Amino acid sequence: MAVIGIDLGGTKTAGIVLNGESIVARDRTDTDASSQESVLSCLLEMGARMREAAERLGLSVNALGLGIAGFIDFERGVVTEAPNHPLKDARVKDILEAETGLAVFVDNDANMAALAEARMGAGKGSRYLVHLTLGTGIGGGIIIDGRVYRGAQGAAAELGHMIVLEDGPLCNCGARGCLEALSSGVAIYRRVEEAAAAGRASPALEEFLADPLAFSAEALGRHADAGDGLAREIFQAAGHHLGTGIASLVNVFNPDVVTLSGGLLGCLHHMEEAMLRSFRETAIAISRDHVRILRSTLGDDVGALGAALLARESLS
Amino acid sequence: MAVIGIDLGGTKTAGIVLNGESIVARDRTDTDASSQESVLSCLLEMGARMREAAERLGLSVNALGLGIAGFIDFERGVVTEAPNHPLKDARVKDILEAETGLAVFVDNDANMAALAEARMGAGKGSRYLVHLTLGTGIGGGIIIDGRVYRGAQGAAAELGHMIVLEDGPLCNCGARGCLEALSSGVAIYRRVEEAAAAGRASPALEEFLADPLAFSAEALGRHADAGDGLAREIFQAAGHHLGTGIASLVNVFNPDVVTLSGGLLGCLHHMEEAMLRSFRETAIAISRDHVRILRSTLGDDVGALGAALLARESLS
Repeated sequence: MAVIGIDLGGTKTAGIVLNGESIVARDRTDTDASSQESVLSCLLEMGARMREAAERLGLSVNALGLGIAGFIDFERGVVTEAPNHPLKDARVKDILEAETGLAVFVDNDANMAALAEARMGAGKGSRYLVHLTLGTGIGGGIIIDGRVYRGAQGAAAELGHMIVLEDGPLCNCGARGCLEALSSGVAIYRRVEEAAAAGRASPALEEFLADPLAFSAEALGRHADAGDGLAREIFQAAGHHLGTGIASLVNVFNPDVVTLSGGLLGCLHHMEEAMLRSFRETAIAISRDHVRILRSTLGDDVGALGAALLARESLS
Repeated sequence: MAVIGIDLGGTKTAGIVLNGESIVARDRTDTDASSQESVLSCLLEMGARMREAAERLGLSVNALGLGIAGFIDFERGVVTEAPNHPLKDARVKDILEAETGLAVFVDNDANMAALAEARMGAGKGSRYLVHLTLGTGIGGGIIIDGRVYRGAQGAAAELGHMIVLEDGPLCNCGARGCLEALSSGVAIYRRVEEAAAAGRASPALEEFLADPLAFSAEALGRHADAGDGLAREIFQAAGHHLGTGIASLVNVFNPDVVTLSGGLLGCLHHMEEAMLRSFRETAIAISRDHVRILRSTLGDDVGALGAALLARESLS
């Protein structure tokens, strides 16, 4: 039996078909996030496309897993709140089950990434895993005793909203000094803005000032690769905070593995030294010496793969 | 069948006999922490005394639970490292089992407090509970799905060593800005020292300067009760950081309950307002609105009671 995994992103929706340990089909489309209906038909379309792909390979499909950024009530399959989609108390599981006839399971996208890493990725085989998705924001997933940890209402693992620097920069969540406000793509962009406002000069800032809206952490990464000192400094600051955040998580969870995925991975080499330094200075020895901090090995498949694994494991 | 619970503290050792839901005997002695042998005989003595107390009541005892501050390998019953006792890689379970003939279970003391709160205390019946012991240091315990969470090596739940204020005050663990360095008895004492060094004046500081070694957070609490502005200010600062730390934990765990115990509870009324304010400002709404933050209702019994519950539940 094959299963379908879908990762509903703010701009892209990824789908895969998982058969045993192999991804036998994958696709990617733009997400139409204009309304709840458009999001649901985007999901149904991807589901139908993946099902056809499976059937062309002679595989029948019995379940569909779905990862979405936001607060999810996993038991009921309801999206309580989603930052990037017009889904509010949306009974996504019920709706998709009625439309497809498949068993459908819905969970937070970073939880799904954590599950994928623990089963088939960098943390394969680990019982205790903490995952961070480093992108525009910072998402988190926790695997405890081999299973996704969701907390009392499915709102757990908001690891980007651990406070690392009290009274620090304002975060999108309204609090100050969250890890996300210090080490995410948004935080890096903010440091670029601040450097520009302070009148600093560098090739990266020139590109930023020419077209601020087109600029991104990835663009800054290219300048850092080319030797731009300011760009490197900004990544090191983000890495320093990230290492502190990871140390807090390691002190709290004593995990086997911390895995990192997301759009910022391509810039991680500029953050890594500062990250590992502050991590080592901060984490408790016994946990620090046990844990491995690893990059995701699953690339763009990570979210959809986790969703497929969730579906398969929830069925059995 | 009754069980024995022992809480081995740095200065006091508490023992209880638990029968059903009732503590039918309790005792308390000084801990002789001069050597591994002295600690073990202190434990054996308390165990024997509790066993006799049970037998006088016509109860037979089949297990003994033990809580110790430190890193514990629960499966093997080995105390890897203990801050207040000369136990290093000590096979406490094996030694006590050989001497007593009872089944013995050893765990971290703050884990035991968390278990007691989840079963019979302020968090009775909750599946997801986070516990903080606020004393000289800050200990932590986590209950997930009704069970103690220990992590990969039993070193989890070092909640006092979450970083709340990066590059903040130095902690005993060597890191900076840990919750323990901001909101514990030691942190409060440090603020008193700093206020004295800064030449500030208040009745609390007069008492402190007259005999610094005799001074404590409890003494500061008496001055705050009497209206000492500086004393109140110090507690409010500690409460502010504590609220931020609790918010981080709530964002990470989405628990039903956060319970607080320990020597500082007597001063909590001076910290509470600032604690709840920073907690509310910082925690994510969905988790914040669900969780209850509660004082322990178990008093001095909390650690020994948790140890007894651990023994009973580990047997069955």
